[in-house]
Amino acid sequence: MAKLPTFKHATIIGVGLLGGSVALALRKAYRGIVIAGVGRRQASLDTAVQAGIIDTTHLDPVGPSSKSDLIILATPVGSFERHLKAIASAIEPGCLVTDVGSTKALVVSQARRILGRGGPFVGSHPMAGSEHKGCQFARAELLAGATCVVTPTADTPSPLVARTEGLWRTLGMNVVRMTPARHDQAVAKISHLPHLLSALLMLLPDEQALGVSASGFRDMTRLSGSDVEMWRDILLTNRVPITRAIRKFASCLADLQMLLECEDIAKIEKLLTTARHRREKLLARRK
Amino acid sequence: MAKLPTFKHATIIGVGLLGGSVALALRKAYRGIVIAGVGRRQASLDTAVQAGIIDTTHLDPVGPSSKSDLIILATPVGSFERHLKAIASAIEPGCLVTDVGSTKALVVSQARRILGRGGPFVGSHPMAGSEHKGCQFARAELLAGATCVVTPTADTPSPLVARTEGLWRTLGMNVVRMTPARHDQAVAKISHLPHLLSALLMLLPDEQALGVSASGFRDMTRLSGSDVEMWRDILLTNRVPITRAIRKFASCLADLQMLLECEDIAKIEKLLTTARHRREKLLARRK
Repeated sequence: MAKLPTFKHATIIGVGLLGGSVALALRKAYRGIVIAGVGRRQASLDTAVQAGIIDTTHLDPVGPSSKSDLIILATPVGSFERHLKAIASAIEPGCLVTDVGSTKALVVSQARRILGRGGPFVGSHPMAGSEHKGCQFARAELLAGATCVVTPTADTPSPLVARTEGLWRTLGMNVVRMTPARHDQAVAKISHLPHLLSALLMLLPDEQALGVSASGFRDMTRLSGSDVEMWRDILLTNRVPITRAIRKFASCLADLQMLLECEDIAKIEKLLTTARHRREKLLARRK
Repeated sequence: MAKLPTFKHATIIGVGLLGGSVALALRKAYRGIVIAGVGRRQASLDTAVQAGIIDTTHLDPVGPSSKSDLIILATPVGSFERHLKAIASAIEPGCLVTDVGSTKALVVSQARRILGRGGPFVGSHPMAGSEHKGCQFARAELLAGATCVVTPTADTPSPLVARTEGLWRTLGMNVVRMTPARHDQAVAKISHLPHLLSALLMLLPDEQALGVSASGFRDMTRLSGSDVEMWRDILLTNRVPITRAIRKFASCLADLQMLLECEDIAKIEKLLTTARHRREKLLARRK
């Protein structure tokens, strides 16, 4: 087992649900760590201090970044480029820069361009969250037991990868390594397309039909309640894998419609049974 | 407030999750009621007796039906016609026949043809359930607070409608009246299409992508774990409204894909925001 990394001064840029949860988990795992919170609104940052999530508040990331051995980007991914440019010259040697963004290819290429090829950035995506927005919903347990995808590139130094993976493991996460492109294809199917289906489904029924909807519909539309700004950025930065996933899904939907129109009972049963078994396998693997 | 109906002898045909839950709720609401359970497998019926769900077990619905003032069909809808034919001549005057099936137009027309126009059948659909199968998951509370759609036709006598609605209200449900056709259009959008999307989504990602999926994906695919036989029957008996809902959904999906391809940020934001607000309104109405 590799020695786990230690961190003493962290800067979290964006103290929302996920950024706040990472801060709380860091606090539990690294006794005595000092956490600087960077945000757009002083009032939100003050709330985060009062809740014991962060120690200091900053509207500009440069100051705290220059004193940190860990910087985590946790704003909507569309603003990462701006933050990376702002902190680039402030980062001290030995500092690890990572993120919690939901898309990776663009983010990783921006970081390589702005911070350099050999580090200090390694992309991360903790697969945890909820439809709620804001640090008032943050909790350390959000990360525990969940998966974190880490996306180094060919020129990321191995010790930096190990340090990033060690960080997330220390916070109780299962680490999976993928290339940025592979990550983006995967999340297009398991996260981004589901989110779009959820939103479209929410818009489909009329008021009377909505009025008799039950738990199945509520579950299927939970994701549509998520933060719009975050999702707009995800959709735009992962546009190509998402449109590819939509095309594939639309073609499956058209096939299924054909089966229904032909009343092909055997094939419909087979499709439902295969999906059911696949889900059982997935749940079993999680246990 | 109308006088609530009383029942002394009920027959539940199909003692699964929903049939079992109705039996348990009947027992709580109608002290001393005797409940006959009809099923295909003696072992399952014995389990239901041991769990206190039913009092007597029957492989043939005719015997208990002739002694009942309430008969509830709770098998997959594809077998309703067979059961209605079997019990038709056994039903006593004053007996109410209803069901818990997820589709109504075909069921109601079968019942009118087999049992007669003026009753004793009134279609019902308690909008409650889960992805679990079998009476071991049955509980009286499944129905409480949920919606029950009741679907009388123009020639259903008003006292019979009142009796049916009174039954479900007594079991703690909110009753909504709709025509069978309107019901079927509504559930195609709020239940049947969501189920199909859930199954297709479960089949889309490869194993590696599935391996990093999180709670959003698990929620979106929960419905795909439902009973295949029940869903096969639902899909086949509500084929036309469902294919219409698929067509409408597919067209919305194609529009969204176009917005993504054109990077039409304003329209994407508007779509996400409208869905989010609609969901908030739905949740607020439920409280």
